[in-house]
Amino acid sequence: MPAPVTISLDAMGGDHGPSVVVPGIRSYIRAHDGEGVRFLLHGDEAKIAPELARCGLATDICEIRHTDKVVAMDEKPAQAMRRGKGSSLWNAIEAVKTGQAGGVVSAGNTGALMAISKLILRMSAPGLERPAIVASWPTFKGHTAVLDVGANIGSDAEQLIEFAIMGEAFQSAVRGIARPTIGLLNVGSEDMKGNEQVKEAHAILRDGPFDLNYHGFVEGDDIAKGTVDVVVTDGFTGNIALKTAEGTARYISALLKEALTSNLQSKLGAVIAMPALKKMRQKIDPSTINGGPLLGLNGIVVKSHGGADAKGFGNAIRIAVDLARSDYMSKVGDNLGKLDAVFDHAAKPAASVGEPLQ
Amino acid sequence: MPAPVTISLDAMGGDHGPSVVVPGIRSYIRAHDGEGVRFLLHGDEAKIAPELARCGLATDICEIRHTDKVVAMDEKPAQAMRRGKGSSLWNAIEAVKTGQAGGVVSAGNTGALMAISKLILRMSAPGLERPAIVASWPTFKGHTAVLDVGANIGSDAEQLIEFAIMGEAFQSAVRGIARPTIGLLNVGSEDMKGNEQVKEAHAILRDGPFDLNYHGFVEGDDIAKGTVDVVVTDGFTGNIALKTAEGTARYISALLKEALTSNLQSKLGAVIAMPALKKMRQKIDPSTINGGPLLGLNGIVVKSHGGADAKGFGNAIRIAVDLARSDYMSKVGDNLGKLDAVFDHAAKPAASVGEPLQ
Repeated sequence: MPAPVTISLDAMGGDHGPSVVVPGIRSYIRAHDGEGVRFLLHGDEAKIAPELARCGLATDICEIRHTDKVVAMDEKPAQAMRRGKGSSLWNAIEAVKTGQAGGVVSAGNTGALMAISKLILRMSAPGLERPAIVASWPTFKGHTAVLDVGANIGSDAEQLIEFAIMGEAFQSAVRGIARPTIGLLNVGSEDMKGNEQVKEAHAILRDGPFDLNYHGFVEGDDIAKGTVDVVVTDGFTGNIALKTAEGTARYISALLKEALTSNLQSKLGAVIAMPALKKMRQKIDPSTINGGPLLGLNGIVVKSHGGADAKGFGNAIRIAVDLARSDYMSKVGDNLGKLDAVFDHAAKPAASVGEPLQ
Repeated sequence: MPAPVTISLDAMGGDHGPSVVVPGIRSYIRAHDGEGVRFLLHGDEAKIAPELARCGLATDICEIRHTDKVVAMDEKPAQAMRRGKGSSLWNAIEAVKTGQAGGVVSAGNTGALMAISKLILRMSAPGLERPAIVASWPTFKGHTAVLDVGANIGSDAEQLIEFAIMGEAFQSAVRGIARPTIGLLNVGSEDMKGNEQVKEAHAILRDGPFDLNYHGFVEGDDIAKGTVDVVVTDGFTGNIALKTAEGTARYISALLKEALTSNLQSKLGAVIAMPALKKMRQKIDPSTINGGPLLGLNGIVVKSHGGADAKGFGNAIRIAVDLARSDYMSKVGDNLGKLDAVFDHAAKPAASVGEPLQ
């Protein structure tokens, strides 16, 4: 029997609140059994309870922790930190801090989630200013973890190495890969290519004390090829790469749709090929890759897309459960400890807690 | 009648040499008339002459400038600079320097082309270490120019502004857009987002003395949307964005092919829809977007892909002709002149000429 684990949920987060979060639990249980998994649902009991009844979920598995307060989707992070205490988002994270839950999932406001997580749980990675966001990228070979895709602007070599450590442990826990391969995103594969940060990180990853399966530099087209299991990059480049890929995928899908509906003959062809085309769509269906963990915190925090459906939210729950049940935290801790041998942390003040996020 | 112009060609460059370059001229003439355009073909007369005869091209339009010497596709830039004098690549560029040609096209070794162009023609943009490469990106609205996609690592604000100036003039000359809109690639659209370079460049483009139609920040998915006509970014991010998009396009095309050949029914559907699917393919056909100008030089240099076919090489010729016939050089010169009002060039030594390229 799998180890018992409790997951804390911000039931009010996202565009739809409990009407997606609760069916999301049901979707998770149907797809992954859910034996040994309990949930704490933070939010408005009057809205959550009817959803639990509708979905046939028992209250011994899904415990409601009532609060009236919510953080709005458009609230600024600094404001959310000042005024968010006691909200569903805040309480959901606090349950991880107090040890009542092994991880938290929220579809709420990303900036607020990041700021409050950092405030309550604190960073575990000494070089990071804020948590790193992982994208699970569909590839020819499965899924590659790409990080950071948005939180840390202008990462130095130490941050890049922290992303490598965390991405490796994540991919191992969530995808079950024993020794995930790691690539550093660059403009070429030769040692002399790239900016100073990637060159320094490359040399340390290659020769340093970390227990990592480092592959070397990879280029942009290596992501979709699945050349490595983990692609490490700074938050600026990673965010732009991710959004550029999403834009490209949308563009090609639109061209395809246009072509297949351009005249009667092509419409007929499309109808006949539809079952195969639907199967193709599933491979790049966002709900199968929903759930972006915020890495680098003393605790497991998973962000679900604000507009995710129940299946997507269920997938975010799966990621939180897999991380909570794995040796992710201890493995990351071991490797982060080795950073001291490479970087002089005495010279660097610990990241402050209260600074406003961009 | 369009203004007469002479284009210098490295007839030996690329994977195929004269057997693509010469049919490329024919392809250009067939597609764009070619009235008033003459060519200087640098390379081995014994190989070029039969191709000209085969393609029915007269020697008064296509003049051969014989040389035995070639720069190999795998030659290092520093080596090519030392040993390349008198090669087809070298002589083709020199014809621009001496005023015999209004522009040059080469499908040769990119590093060598860049290094020798810089050596012979020198940089016209004071902040650039090496020429910027433009990608013509297919979008929902046409084509967006994205630069730099590979040459300059870690661009500062001045370089980003130079890319904006050159990209605007390029898009105006080659796409005939009167006032191209310009966007600066970033991780969000608010003023406070991004790294120091993009924030500084953003403020100067918004408030500075340049005659540019500046739109503001754009994100990765805005490229394919066609939100702006010119997307400005540093060579590191631009190269990764371009290759990531290429990888995504290849991945989705492969999924589509797999789906449409997965069983008899889908194969039948594909055959019926084929004419429409072929039309779709043309929109993202690399040969229609081949031809990346190297911007920032005192002269027009266009790089054709080493593996381009005749149609693709013809398109690279079109770009060189359009640039040579336009007011590109004077327009760029005017706006670059205004940089002095913003950046203190006295404090900065001019870019050296002989340094090895990465």
